[in-house]
Amino acid sequence: MIAMKKFRVGILGATGVVGQRFIQLLEDHPQFEITALAASGRSQGKPFAQACTWRLPGDMPERVKQIVVEPPAPPLDCDLVFASLPGEIAKDAEEEFARLLIPEVNADHLALIDFQRKNRGFDRGFIVTNPNCSAIVIVMALAPLHTKFGVTSCVVTTMQALSGAGYPGVASLDATDNVIPFIGGEEEKIEAETLKLLGHCQNGAIAGPDMTVSAQCNRVNVSDGHMASIRVKLKTAVSIDDIRGALASFTSQPQQLKLHSAPERPIIVRNENDRPQPRLDRDSGNGMSVTVGRVMPDNVLDYRFVALGHNTIRGAAGAAILNAELLIAQGYLVQ
Amino acid sequence: MIAMKKFRVGILGATGVVGQRFIQLLEDHPQFEITALAASGRSQGKPFAQACTWRLPGDMPERVKQIVVEPPAPPLDCDLVFASLPGEIAKDAEEEFARLLIPEVNADHLALIDFQRKNRGFDRGFIVTNPNCSAIVIVMALAPLHTKFGVTSCVVTTMQALSGAGYPGVASLDATDNVIPFIGGEEEKIEAETLKLLGHCQNGAIAGPDMTVSAQCNRVNVSDGHMASIRVKLKTAVSIDDIRGALASFTSQPQQLKLHSAPERPIIVRNENDRPQPRLDRDSGNGMSVTVGRVMPDNVLDYRFVALGHNTIRGAAGAAILNAELLIAQGYLVQ
Amino acid sequence: MIAMKKFRVGILGATGVVGQRFIQLLEDHPQFEITALAASGRSQGKPFAQACTWRLPGDMPERVKQIVVEPPAPPLDCDLVFASLPGEIAKDAEEEFARLLIPEVNADHLALIDFQRKNRGFDRGFIVTNPNCSAIVIVMALAPLHTKFGVTSCVVTTMQALSGAGYPGVASLDATDNVIPFIGGEEEKIEAETLKLLGHCQNGAIAGPDMTVSAQCNRVNVSDGHMASIRVKLKTAVSIDDIRGALASFTSQPQQLKLHSAPERPIIVRNENDRPQPRLDRDSGNGMSVTVGRVMPDNVLDYRFVALGHNTIRGAAGAAILNAELLIAQGYLVQ
Amino acid sequence: MIAMKKFRVGILGATGVVGQRFIQLLEDHPQFEITALAASGRSQGKPFAQACTWRLPGDMPERVKQIVVEPPAPPLDCDLVFASLPGEIAKDAEEEFARLLIPEVNADHLALIDFQRKNRGFDRGFIVTNPNCSAIVIVMALAPLHTKFGVTSCVVTTMQALSGAGYPGVASLDATDNVIPFIGGEEEKIEAETLKLLGHCQNGAIAGPDMTVSAQCNRVNVSDGHMASIRVKLKTAVSIDDIRGALASFTSQPQQLKLHSAPERPIIVRNENDRPQPRLDRDSGNGMSVTVGRVMPDNVLDYRFVALGHNTIRGAAGAAILNAELLIAQGYLVQ
Repeated sequence: MIAMKKFRVGILGATGVVGQRFIQLLEDHPQFEITALAASGRSQGKPFAQACTWRLPGDMPERVKQIVVEPPAPPLDCDLVFASLPGEIAKDAEEEFARLLIPEVNADHLALIDFQRKNRGFDRGFIVTNPNCSAIVIVMALAPLHTKFGVTSCVVTTMQALSGAGYPGVASLDATDNVIPFIGGEEEKIEAETLKLLGHCQNGAIAGPDMTVSAQCNRVNVSDGHMASIRVKLKTAVSIDDIRGALASFTSQPQQLKLHSAPERPIIVRNENDRPQPRLDRDSGNGMSVTVGRVMPDNVLDYRFVALGHNTIRGAAGAAILNAELLIAQGYLVQ
Repeated sequence: MIAMKKFRVGILGATGVVGQRFIQLLEDHPQFEITALAASGRSQGKPFAQACTWRLPGDMPERVKQIVVEPPAPPLDCDLVFASLPGEIAKDAEEEFARLLIPEVNADHLALIDFQRKNRGFDRGFIVTNPNCSAIVIVMALAPLHTKFGVTSCVVTTMQALSGAGYPGVASLDATDNVIPFIGGEEEKIEAETLKLLGHCQNGAIAGPDMTVSAQCNRVNVSDGHMASIRVKLKTAVSIDDIRGALASFTSQPQQLKLHSAPERPIIVRNENDRPQPRLDRDSGNGMSVTVGRVMPDNVLDYRFVALGHNTIRGAAGAAILNAELLIAQGYLVQ
Repeated sequence: MIAMKKFRVGILGATGVVGQRFIQLLEDHPQFEITALAASGRSQGKPFAQACTWRLPGDMPERVKQIVVEPPAPPLDCDLVFASLPGEIAKDAEEEFARLLIPEVNADHLALIDFQRKNRGFDRGFIVTNPNCSAIVIVMALAPLHTKFGVTSCVVTTMQALSGAGYPGVASLDATDNVIPFIGGEEEKIEAETLKLLGHCQNGAIAGPDMTVSAQCNRVNVSDGHMASIRVKLKTAVSIDDIRGALASFTSQPQQLKLHSAPERPIIVRNENDRPQPRLDRDSGNGMSVTVGRVMPDNVLDYRFVALGHNTIRGAAGAAILNAELLIAQGYLVQ
Repeated sequence: MIAMKKFRVGILGATGVVGQRFIQLLEDHPQFEITALAASGRSQGKPFAQACTWRLPGDMPERVKQIVVEPPAPPLDCDLVFASLPGEIAKDAEEEFARLLIPEVNADHLALIDFQRKNRGFDRGFIVTNPNCSAIVIVMALAPLHTKFGVTSCVVTTMQALSGAGYPGVASLDATDNVIPFIGGEEEKIEAETLKLLGHCQNGAIAGPDMTVSAQCNRVNVSDGHMASIRVKLKTAVSIDDIRGALASFTSQPQQLKLHSAPERPIIVRNENDRPQPRLDRDSGNGMSVTVGRVMPDNVLDYRFVALGHNTIRGAAGAAILNAELLIAQGYLVQ
């Protein structure tokens, strides 16, 4: 066995809720080691242990404590970058880091990397962006149904966790004994990205499926775990057992390639009538599985169910790492 | 001015969450006075102050403290009965109390009372039952749209308060940092009762509208206030201003008759993008108004919005009292 | 009866959690009317309806909607000012407003106003500052015991509400499923202010009592209502009935003068073994009463009990208003 | 290396909150294997997978799913029994199981086993009971201070987690936006058991130390993790560094014997001013460490600090397993 040299990783937005998840998930990763941490103004120039108030259960990993926080701009001492930055900052920073890497979710779209390199004049680097954290959970559940039966309409109502808004994010006075029926830009993102993610890659562009998507988004008083009540209309008449079977048997490239962060079962179908629940199911498959329950026929569309996934793992840091693993397996990332 | 004698009221399930709301709402009511309290086994024979642990903010009203709790069966010393009993017990108890009164929501259905009296051989009494507490909130918001534009499909996802499950109800370990995507029988009830409530009374039966209804129900960590994300498909093409106008201008018999518990505005339309919220809006109109917000076009159906109402006031005790007031105004209840 | 002209009131920090309470409590006040609203930078120059996101249940009162928000500095169009500003800003602003009024809690200390005027060369104006919101609740409960029996030691552990930190204040990720054992400066303030508030006014200074005070402060996941577990050591040997009697029978100048905002019973003693509770007791006496329960002998000190008060009413806005009423009654405030 | 045969373990109260923790913690234990599960009436006769609604994150371990639930009475097919039963049931059941084992916390008290065997005529078996879950956390923190400096008084105010009340336990309507200042029997238990646990074993009885203990107990809206604000008065004058040092350097027999469930550091001292926090620190040392923070001098007693431990692991199931490991190491448990 030949010892493999690890890829050197930088994390943008390292002090935030998702940045800390990256650090936690990469602590003992066989293919990556953290060599650079970057964050916004106040943290720069300080060792990470001083710059960052660690907000996850468990301690800050020893090996990042002495890394000095840098500005989120090149050059960073690393082979690739995982980014978790707020919207506006992200746009600029991601552009500047174009020669490095920011990974993404669905495998056949990786072909776009070649087009990107060509269009932007990149030599080796490329950008792969992460979808919206709710869209990931929803699309994970839709993917096997769409592939097998064709989804023509999808009506989604989300109940999203507080960590999705980052830190400090939602004020506790808004969260306690309350639900907020608004998350800025979220409904539009879910509606648009669901189509993109389920689309096909043709000549360097994505052709969305013939599908309508409606999303209503709510913030609920839950720390982690985005949940979605979903109805689907299908092209084909299928039985409820077909639906359950398609969901439960779903696997894809990450499982076939046995990627390090790939959950054994990307979708876990539960039959109890009160599951999934955020507190009980968000950590399934080390936070990388999506749990689906309450699969039932629907009066208005064809079928309905509830899907749940961990928003900062499956929906953010874990998704990015998984796809970096995929990029290595497919030869896009080489040392 | 002639002083009116008050109706003498009994409350079944007086020690429960809704029973206590009845007592609170009737404390200074101009038309009703509480003369009898009934509850299940353990409480019977004790003065109410001993039998009941008061769980609402504020103190137990003085005038009920000495009333001795009786079994929920005739004879009770009262002219009419407000009932709040768990499912199975309710069935039997409501039957026995048929010669008294248990009220309900929509005005033209009162014509059914005449059929009921005839069929059951009641002399003066009748039964009017309350709809499901979520159905009330949903149907309040649908009613003006259905009347004006015709609703053909309705997709509802609820986020329901803990008090809807009574006391002790939901275990705190299930509620904290969690959402439960299941409330026994609730989805079926909402789907069935929405049709009934929006139906027309013909020859002693209700003819439901030509409408499909889908409900997915969730229990969230909120003390009071049922919220619903709602999409509707309409018979007629209408503008968003038509929708908003129909909701905001809605009034009905309780407002025209200036009934004591009638809110001035049954539906309050809010334009802020993050309303309604349970903590801020549940007590609007003394808990009797339904607040609607986020009215928007929808990609899959025609329009969508969010509706919120106080589940133990507008959805239970207040609704029953309001309709008893209507029964008086229409001459069904006489002394 | 002669119609009294109302005092014209300005509110500093009008957009904050406590500022909004001032506005709510003054809506129908017989002696005060709001004529000026001031707040920090971003709000200035806008009508209050635009400048302020109303975060209390119920709507923003109509009469303040059109008032244009000014900087928190003279001149403001008012006779007196109620201030609720964050620490640092407060210091400067309060100094500048010295010729107006910022009120306070204990009656005999008002004699200090004469000394203040003399020392600062104020002609008519004076400053009365509000104590810490936890100190108010604690001292309310200690006052009758100290007056009658002499408190020599007091050990306090607080469980404080989220609204005490203002808005946005505590991040929801810190509040959910959690307790935070730290509130900056709070333990020192309670320890110092308890002594000041229970001290006697001598020659323009306050002589603190011979008492030791220990405070440990925790932030808990409660919207409103500061709770404190309290033990006291007394100079005199007294029975538990003496303790209960002293607490329950306590009244002071606000009650004797029948001030508008004075609760009939400043301290409500409850005998149930699970009271006080924030959700059930914080609004007692319109939020102006302190509720005490679990009065028991203590193994280490002499007696122990639990006290609860509404932190933004009894502990902030309501306290300031009550004492402005006292200042009017005592002739310090004249038109 | 000689393969050791595992002890065969029965769990009483297997379906409850603590019973499920036993099952989770024993899943891969090197010395114990679960061979019997017992619980109250309704569950008996069913396979555990049917009898028990699993309420912990993660799935029910495969190996217990088919074990048929038995009544909590002999004979059970096991060498020793871990019991987690509600008060009254526990008394009888523990008596009947006297010839088996129910373990306990402090090592030198194990000498009482010999007296117990003699007094009760036990041949091989013995009973070791678990202390109260709050008392364990508190005494863990007091032990090094008492050993080194002598604690003469201790004033404790607890903020206890919902799981301490079992399932369904606390009603969510009581927990949400609330604190309950009462836990039946808890204050008395903490006061009594702290003395017992810190006492010395003399001639088959425990001589308590010369110490006064005061406990006020509150239930807060936290799922797991009991927190306590603690003040101590000491026999000796010591510096704050002495206190911190004694706590941080504390180890005892479980660490020296390298018992499987022993945390490396039984007490973790944190220096951040806002720690410990239940959500961040309860799982330290796999839930077996107690975290102490905010060590400070106190105005009334000598020092104060905050201690936190996981109530169903360190305070219940984990404590029992740890001490069973100790019993094996000391030769009380043999096959």
